[in-house]
Amino acid sequence: MKKIIESIANGVKEINRYQAGKSIEEVREEYGLEKIVKLASNENPLGPAIQVIDTIQSEAKNISLYPDSDSRELKSALAEKYQLDQEKIFLGNGSDEILDLLMTLILKSGDEVIQGDPSFIKYELSIKSRGGNNIKVPLDENYRHDLKAMESKITDQTKAILICNPNNPTGTMLEKEEIESFLERISDEILVIVDQAYHEYITAEDHFDGVELLDKHSNLMLMRTFSKVYGLAGMRIGYALADSELIDYLNRIRGPFNVNRLAQKAAVTALKSESHLEICQNLNEKEKNFLYQKFEELGLDYIKTEANFVMVNTEMPAEEVFEKLQQEGVIIRAGKQFGMDTWIRVTIGTRADNEYFIRKLKALLLEGTE
Amino acid sequence: MKKIIESIANGVKEINRYQAGKSIEEVREEYGLEKIVKLASNENPLGPAIQVIDTIQSEAKNISLYPDSDSRELKSALAEKYQLDQEKIFLGNGSDEILDLLMTLILKSGDEVIQGDPSFIKYELSIKSRGGNNIKVPLDENYRHDLKAMESKITDQTKAILICNPNNPTGTMLEKEEIESFLERISDEILVIVDQAYHEYITAEDHFDGVELLDKHSNLMLMRTFSKVYGLAGMRIGYALADSELIDYLNRIRGPFNVNRLAQKAAVTALKSESHLEICQNLNEKEKNFLYQKFEELGLDYIKTEANFVMVNTEMPAEEVFEKLQQEGVIIRAGKQFGMDTWIRVTIGTRADNEYFIRKLKALLLEGTE
Repeated sequence: MKKIIESIANGVKEINRYQAGKSIEEVREEYGLEKIVKLASNENPLGPAIQVIDTIQSEAKNISLYPDSDSRELKSALAEKYQLDQEKIFLGNGSDEILDLLMTLILKSGDEVIQGDPSFIKYELSIKSRGGNNIKVPLDENYRHDLKAMESKITDQTKAILICNPNNPTGTMLEKEEIESFLERISDEILVIVDQAYHEYITAEDHFDGVELLDKHSNLMLMRTFSKVYGLAGMRIGYALADSELIDYLNRIRGPFNVNRLAQKAAVTALKSESHLEICQNLNEKEKNFLYQKFEELGLDYIKTEANFVMVNTEMPAEEVFEKLQQEGVIIRAGKQFGMDTWIRVTIGTRADNEYFIRKLKALLLEGTE
Repeated sequence: MKKIIESIANGVKEINRYQAGKSIEEVREEYGLEKIVKLASNENPLGPAIQVIDTIQSEAKNISLYPDSDSRELKSALAEKYQLDQEKIFLGNGSDEILDLLMTLILKSGDEVIQGDPSFIKYELSIKSRGGNNIKVPLDENYRHDLKAMESKITDQTKAILICNPNNPTGTMLEKEEIESFLERISDEILVIVDQAYHEYITAEDHFDGVELLDKHSNLMLMRTFSKVYGLAGMRIGYALADSELIDYLNRIRGPFNVNRLAQKAAVTALKSESHLEICQNLNEKEKNFLYQKFEELGLDYIKTEANFVMVNTEMPAEEVFEKLQQEGVIIRAGKQFGMDTWIRVTIGTRADNEYFIRKLKALLLEGTE
């Protein structure tokens, strides 16, 4: 096995495994706590619409049957929603898988992919594990993608540019015009992947949507997901909208049954549950403003967000804040892994979650200044 | 996009998409039928244990939470079942995904993987889509893997050998000794992947298990699944047992949440439901013998099987048999895609399913001789 192991690409060897946060059960056990508030993974605190849970429960009896290999029912629902040809829709076992498959398809050893920094941590894993070099370009002074700087990093090896919009972990967003003029400037031989995992949380009026540009820009790929506002993170289902030729190739290299049966059914129901979507969006907006207000009362800097999470500067080592909050039953993300050493990223929860978090944070900050 | 599309590997361009059979709903609609018997995809006709369905239904309420990235509960249950270190267990979104990830990890353009022919159709997709050449070696005259012939195809480019045992679509199996002495002979710089998707259906006494050989042969990988006897094909969950170093690398390149939440929970419950497992195994054995008897009465050649499906020679063009049976509401697989033009592959169903299939087959054969 020596040679087999040796032959594994160096990029893969450099990869550290993704460090998922502790689960609610683990924190509960480890600290002997009853109440746990998890604001770490940008999950929807209201969960999916009740009809979606009904769908899962009722479809469970058919679980011995393979899923529809082509997810026809779901693709047809998405095609209608976006008024788009089904051939432009690709479904994956979470957007994670879509990015992995895309990188498998287009990257050769040494090819480059440009991304913002900090941005979604998974990008680096995807790129390196498929033999590429990821070129990280720091966000601008307002924690937004710096498109000019990203453009300046383009070389003959550049295969794709990743724009997380709104960006995880900062919650910041590029304006519609900024992305549109970027698409005009960039060669169509470079894929522009806009990861819109948090798209449905955007409250800014004139934001980038992109669906209407797919015909014009064959190099544009939009990635969306059912994990966030639709409340299906545990189910694993995301989708990409892009050029039909590219999607044809993705279909050839995916597993024939990559999207599980319950996920397909659940997503179809989720798309129909528009009133629940609105409830989740409204809650997020209201609670975002609640957290802003509390951060201001505490005198803390924060980054205005267009997503369901917000970054706040605790002015203490973030890892320490993370540890202490966890001991108190509040799970958040330390900004250290994003290179923002005193910042934490907190998912916007229900009012009860947010109040609990603020109370614990306040106590910790007071303790810090004693 | 011209250059991007051009740069996609030729192997990928040669791939035809996996052709899944029609679903029960589609056949019902297309032919206006009420009763459909699907014996096409080797699904468990009894489904999973009722406790597994309960687990799925009760876990549905937590579906907005990400799955455990390390599937700890399930890995721990498997480690106990096999008395094996957890580091030797890898979980995937079906075994399909495990093979794709393995090929992504170990193959470079031009590397070779040896497989039997006919064998599981997915292998070729996996190998070609990850840049490899698949070397197909015909089965022997008893429709079994021809290990000597496979060995003779080994070159400096050979990275892996795939043995489907029992083999899909023939249901044939290699003896314990045959695989063991093969492992002794082969360089440990070539991975030997034994796909044991149908392992739990084997009734032959002295069969190859392989778990006890993992320490001795670091190049051995066993692939198993919850899709077959455990009745969870729609859920997407399979696993591999192999050298911990190899598995460490697989973990680095997989998606952090590749196994969905309900699949993890369902599989844990499935492992505990031993009496249901036995019921399924017993039914399969009994019904296998029922089908043998009926084939003999019809004067048809068939291949003795160690799996939950059986191949039978209809002595008519298989595609025609497939079409006609489908019109009558019985869905099977035509052997043509396996290069066995007059054979069909039929999943062993319940007694009612099997009788229905035999009745329709008999009518069709009589019609053919009129």
